[in-house]
Amino acid sequence: MSPTDVDIENLPDTLRTALEQGSDGPLNAICNAHAPPDLSDALETLPEDQAVAFFQRLESACAAPVYAHLEPDHQSRVLAALDEQQAADLVSALSLDDAVAVIDGLGDEHADSLMETLPAESQEAVGSLLAYPEESAGRVMTPEYVTVQPEWTVNEAMEHLRANHEVAETVNTVFVTTAAGELLAWVRLKELLLARPWNRVSELMHTDVASITAEEDREEAAHRISHYDLNVLPVVDDQGHMLGIITVDDVMDVLRAETTEDFHRMAAVGDVVLSLRDASMGLLYRKRIGWLLILVVVNIFAGLAIAHYEAAIESVVALIFFLPMVIASGGNTGSQAATLVVRSLAINDVRLRDAWRLGGKELGVSTALGLTLAAAIWLSGNWLGSLEVANAIALGMFLVVVFGAMFGMLLPFALTAMRMDPAVASAPLITSVIDIVGILIYFGVAVAMLGL
Amino acid sequence: MSPTDVDIENLPDTLRTALEQGSDGPLNAICNAHAPPDLSDALETLPEDQAVAFFQRLESACAAPVYAHLEPDHQSRVLAALDEQQAADLVSALSLDDAVAVIDGLGDEHADSLMETLPAESQEAVGSLLAYPEESAGRVMTPEYVTVQPEWTVNEAMEHLRANHEVAETVNTVFVTTAAGELLAWVRLKELLLARPWNRVSELMHTDVASITAEEDREEAAHRISHYDLNVLPVVDDQGHMLGIITVDDVMDVLRAETTEDFHRMAAVGDVVLSLRDASMGLLYRKRIGWLLILVVVNIFAGLAIAHYEAAIESVVALIFFLPMVIASGGNTGSQAATLVVRSLAINDVRLRDAWRLGGKELGVSTALGLTLAAAIWLSGNWLGSLEVANAIALGMFLVVVFGAMFGMLLPFALTAMRMDPAVASAPLITSVIDIVGILIYFGVAVAMLGL
Repeated sequence: MSPTDVDIENLPDTLRTALEQGSDGPLNAICNAHAPPDLSDALETLPEDQAVAFFQRLESACAAPVYAHLEPDHQSRVLAALDEQQAADLVSALSLDDAVAVIDGLGDEHADSLMETLPAESQEAVGSLLAYPEESAGRVMTPEYVTVQPEWTVNEAMEHLRANHEVAETVNTVFVTTAAGELLAWVRLKELLLARPWNRVSELMHTDVASITAEEDREEAAHRISHYDLNVLPVVDDQGHMLGIITVDDVMDVLRAETTEDFHRMAAVGDVVLSLRDASMGLLYRKRIGWLLILVVVNIFAGLAIAHYEAAIESVVALIFFLPMVIASGGNTGSQAATLVVRSLAINDVRLRDAWRLGGKELGVSTALGLTLAAAIWLSGNWLGSLEVANAIALGMFLVVVFGAMFGMLLPFALTAMRMDPAVASAPLITSVIDIVGILIYFGVAVAMLGL
Repeated sequence: MSPTDVDIENLPDTLRTALEQGSDGPLNAICNAHAPPDLSDALETLPEDQAVAFFQRLESACAAPVYAHLEPDHQSRVLAALDEQQAADLVSALSLDDAVAVIDGLGDEHADSLMETLPAESQEAVGSLLAYPEESAGRVMTPEYVTVQPEWTVNEAMEHLRANHEVAETVNTVFVTTAAGELLAWVRLKELLLARPWNRVSELMHTDVASITAEEDREEAAHRISHYDLNVLPVVDDQGHMLGIITVDDVMDVLRAETTEDFHRMAAVGDVVLSLRDASMGLLYRKRIGWLLILVVVNIFAGLAIAHYEAAIESVVALIFFLPMVIASGGNTGSQAATLVVRSLAINDVRLRDAWRLGGKELGVSTALGLTLAAAIWLSGNWLGSLEVANAIALGMFLVVVFGAMFGMLLPFALTAMRMDPAVASAPLITSVIDIVGILIYFGVAVAMLGL
């Protein structure tokens, strides 16, 4: 039977016990009985020397899929601890797309020396994939696939698939190409199976074939697979010749990584902190201090704006009391608007051409939000201060909220138009800018209306 | 050949032209030539009466997959505009899991009257799926699948699959059960295909079968499919009998919706704004005003805290100048920490039991961040004010940053421990709490050190 949740929970202890024994038998039994992702999760919790021993003592056939599921920094550290032959065996046993990901994650020197120890055939295949731009579809595709041709009979096609099943990562969907490799159509393995042996592939195939070129962004590959509900997407060159395939499980990893990147950018954390659990203190410090220092500098201007209105503060102390409420409301409304747009841009719900329409809608929404919040602060102002002060802070609130909302809504579009990642419009950045402009609007209105 | 990007870009116009013609021929041709997700995207941009006409004039066989890809609110509006028979035909032509999703999205009354018009068989199947809890695995599974038994020969298994291929949504992975339906193992269609006809299924099958019970959360189903790189996950009852399957494309939609929900909660936007493009102004207003009003109330305390230190502000005006910088730094550090934890909890990188270890790590990281930021502000303070003032604001900065980081890191864990969604620890909420505590810490330190 399959391992239970309790077995999986205890897997680190089970592994540790097996690693402390002299014989490799129990270790092999564990490796065969558990799914690779569970084994890699368990190994990540063990001390590094035990994780390394696991890969030293097991055959590559069982160890490679486990290695493929380790987090990138664990992969690099294990590889560095193995001797040259062990490392080469392990990497050669990976599927090509996984091997590329591993080598990609190493420093240049280490990558070069590892490449030299690989068999000539793997060297060439890995090298050609590494030639594609970073984060492109070409980098995550695998060139291990089989295709059939339209003029073949079902019988010929099935024979071809049987003969080539070992080189192909998936054959659930089979692509149909010309003899020269030009992508024409796709056919389900199921359909070949159910057809009569003398039928032609051309009678069964579907010509509505989605594809992507190798130079396009891997995120676009993820969108296309998700949009068309595919299990596998063919990758082609500019002339439409097939180069490889991208499978849905690779794409789920891409989407998860890109989404995490968006989350972190939105909170002004630098890139590449993909696992909080494994990140070192030094890495976390470096990824966070940059934006914090930049924002300190931005907030100097907020200080200057307040200092500029020192006289106004001294004559009407109620103004400083309501300041945090007004400024925070502007920042909060702006963060809401920015988050809505950034997420909608990320999932293609909204595109750049929608900017004006959505800006118009946000003007309506933020007017309503601003009026509600102005009413709330007017009531408190009237209760705590005077009618004149209440009118001034209510108008200030309204203007700051509308400004915050419009800034939060339009900044991500502006970044997109400049071909930058809209997620750079982080909540802290937006809040800081709204702080400064908000202080100027708030005191400017107060000075004008109260005649200070 | 397959439609080009330009064809897809022009699809709304092409559809409009076809809908304005009397004959249904061109409309049928368009429906057959394009992928359902592209057609549904195009229909969503057309006026409602044209979108409705599309479903009135086309056969269900072509229209149903297009309908399945519409956004939920478009689905409801189209259904309401169709007559009873058309609506029943369309819903009956959907796959069962899609039909459940549509009926689930209707109001109770409308759902009941639609159910009554469905064929008895569909009524029963849809009803049994709707009996599972909301957002459970049972609600998103489809009960349309075929299984094989371990004692069957490969030939018998293949015959069974051929005979039942029309009822099964996918047969790329075939599950193996006892005659009573107890889930035992899985086998790839490819493996059955490559084996000799007289082999037994039991010789080919894999017993490391991941599954989920129907009552578990659909998000857990998504995690399991992603973790084990599956195309399909079997759903079982408490006794391990198979009830249905969940496919990877359904799960990608679940993950996308859950992630969007997290993004929006982090920015203090209420739930259910899944498409910014389609959301009405009224909906956007209602989903945003609640948290904004709550945060205004919270910020009253920030105002009170400032008012409390009025005397200190009047005697050392430099204090108000540096206030925004210190408070914003605390809020920014806290947002970073909260976002890192919320995202890591969402992707199972981190669990509740990691709270103390990560809290310890954050104490180290935030000490380093606090020291850096304190040094930066000390330099500005020394330049603009005096050494005493610089010392006081630097200590204030350090304490506020460490407090902000620890609060941002631990609040999501505390919410998880109370079985609440950690994403409720939104950046605006954290910022507002840090505003109040930060003002008290900052002025408290200043008053104590400067003897005000």
